Amino acid sequence: MPTLDDRHWFTEVHDLTGSAFSLRCRRKLHEERSPYQTIEVYETEAFGNLMVIDGFTMLSSREHFLYHEMLAHPVLLTHPDPKHLCIIGGGDCGTLREVLKHDGVEQVTQIDIDERVTRIAERFFPELTAGNDDPRATLLFADGIHWMAEAPDAGLDAIIIDSTDPVGSAQGLFTADFYRDCRRALGDGGLLVQQSESPLYHLDIIAAMHEDLKGAGFGATQTLFFPQTIYPSGWWSATMACTEPEIPAFRRIDAEVLLGTRYYNADIHAAALAQPELVRKRLGTLD
Amino acid sequence: MPTLDDRHWFTEVHDLTGSAFSLRCRRKLHEERSPYQTIEVYETEAFGNLMVIDGFTMLSSREHFLYHEMLAHPVLLTHPDPKHLCIIGGGDCGTLREVLKHDGVEQVTQIDIDERVTRIAERFFPELTAGNDDPRATLLFADGIHWMAEAPDAGLDAIIIDSTDPVGSAQGLFTADFYRDCRRALGDGGLLVQQSESPLYHLDIIAAMHEDLKGAGFGATQTLFFPQTIYPSGWWSATMACTEPEIPAFRRIDAEVLLGTRYYNADIHAAALAQPELVRKRLGTLD
Repeated sequence: MPTLDDRHWFTEVHDLTGSAFSLRCRRKLHEERSPYQTIEVYETEAFGNLMVIDGFTMLSSREHFLYHEMLAHPVLLTHPDPKHLCIIGGGDCGTLREVLKHDGVEQVTQIDIDERVTRIAERFFPELTAGNDDPRATLLFADGIHWMAEAPDAGLDAIIIDSTDPVGSAQGLFTADFYRDCRRALGDGGLLVQQSESPLYHLDIIAAMHEDLKGAGFGATQTLFFPQTIYPSGWWSATMACTEPEIPAFRRIDAEVLLGTRYYNADIHAAALAQPELVRKRLGTLD
Repeated sequence: MPTLDDRHWFTEVHDLTGSAFSLRCRRKLHEERSPYQTIEVYETEAFGNLMVIDGFTMLSSREHFLYHEMLAHPVLLTHPDPKHLCIIGGGDCGTLREVLKHDGVEQVTQIDIDERVTRIAERFFPELTAGNDDPRATLLFADGIHWMAEAPDAGLDAIIIDSTDPVGSAQGLFTADFYRDCRRALGDGGLLVQQSESPLYHLDIIAAMHEDLKGAGFGATQTLFFPQTIYPSGWWSATMACTEPEIPAFRRIDAEVLLGTRYYNADIHAAALAQPELVRKRLGTLD
């Protein structure tokens, strides 16, 4: 077996499944301990820059478009006229960038607990933060759970939860209590979307999210699927919830021309909604 | 960074992209040098058994269903009445198993150059080879390229090319000469499908396949996409070609009941045909 010389590779081990993903690195560009977490940035050989938080890969220049496009565009093209949004987490600003591509959006508030993630993204992923001075965007550095608990009723059209895994500080973002606050903060026809881990490794987490979202008063839930090379299993998901009994049909637009996407388009949106058999069997009674 | 102790991990390095995928192993169950390649089998911690050929992961008990279902069912449900098939490669017999689930299939000939792969699969992946004594199946151990060159004209309804990467002995399976022999061996409405590498890493290979298939006289080509955890990037593809100017619509069946699938179903089939923007842009003029 080849040897991964630890001086030249960043490796994330996924203990639960005894698997690991590694990227060959030229050098470590940055490391710091913020009040919340340890943030590292590596210059990889072929994936551009790589951000790592507490040892978990967050994004790389090469493939972050898959995740950010799939977190932003499906929900924005499913709501008939999304004007007021918030992003919980998302400190690297890649999701915010995709959201701001939608002309109809009037106001986006991003609430990430850790300002250092954004400052480091400005330095090492400037393509993601270039639009942060857009007058429609407000960046807050605060606890998203508290912010949501105090958000006015029915003021939002969509909530995007772009968090780390459901451990540590992000754990509270995967609870029925938090979802109840989200439900209250959404107006009629409001939509929520949250990154929801790997369909191959974390079906239990996905199933619990569907249950908790329903328990919190959402009328309909659905999980989207997409590839995500640097996350465990390479196959990822996001789960959508709607205040109404049905998630409406999405608007088909020419996404490449209007949004400059590299993965997302209308056919991919429809494809992401297809439920693999193993998921359909597990979630069958929850949808 | 965590250290991957080489005594306990199998690692496949993908040099082109400076990336690697590793599985924690309990022990090596088998290793041999066949006349064609080195074949190893590991008992992994959470992926069941893992077969490795010349250092490349081939299949694991946990997730091979993704690949085998997507190589077999789309083409078999696109042809209106597939009776006579051949599989080139496929020595682990996982694709053959899926093919034999279709009652309409009367005859499948599998041609893999290396009998040892099949014998090792019988021992370590018995669930894949259990149906090999099906009277409809013929297993030949020979050179698939020569076999196809001598195949009778128009005798096949579908050809499935389940090969290793386009290097070494499999290289000849990714050429216009081989595709011309396949085209000749297919009857009216005949279909070919071939594993076609990662959409994220190997778009050039996929684009060349479309060109070569068209050059060999196929009327229509289309690539399908699906997750595949243990292959580089975790995102994989198969490319279909049809003797006719259009690939026909596929038959929607209850795959879970009729085929016992865990990934494939009619919605997933449609989803696999959606072309991500990066692929659409690259292949736009080729389809």
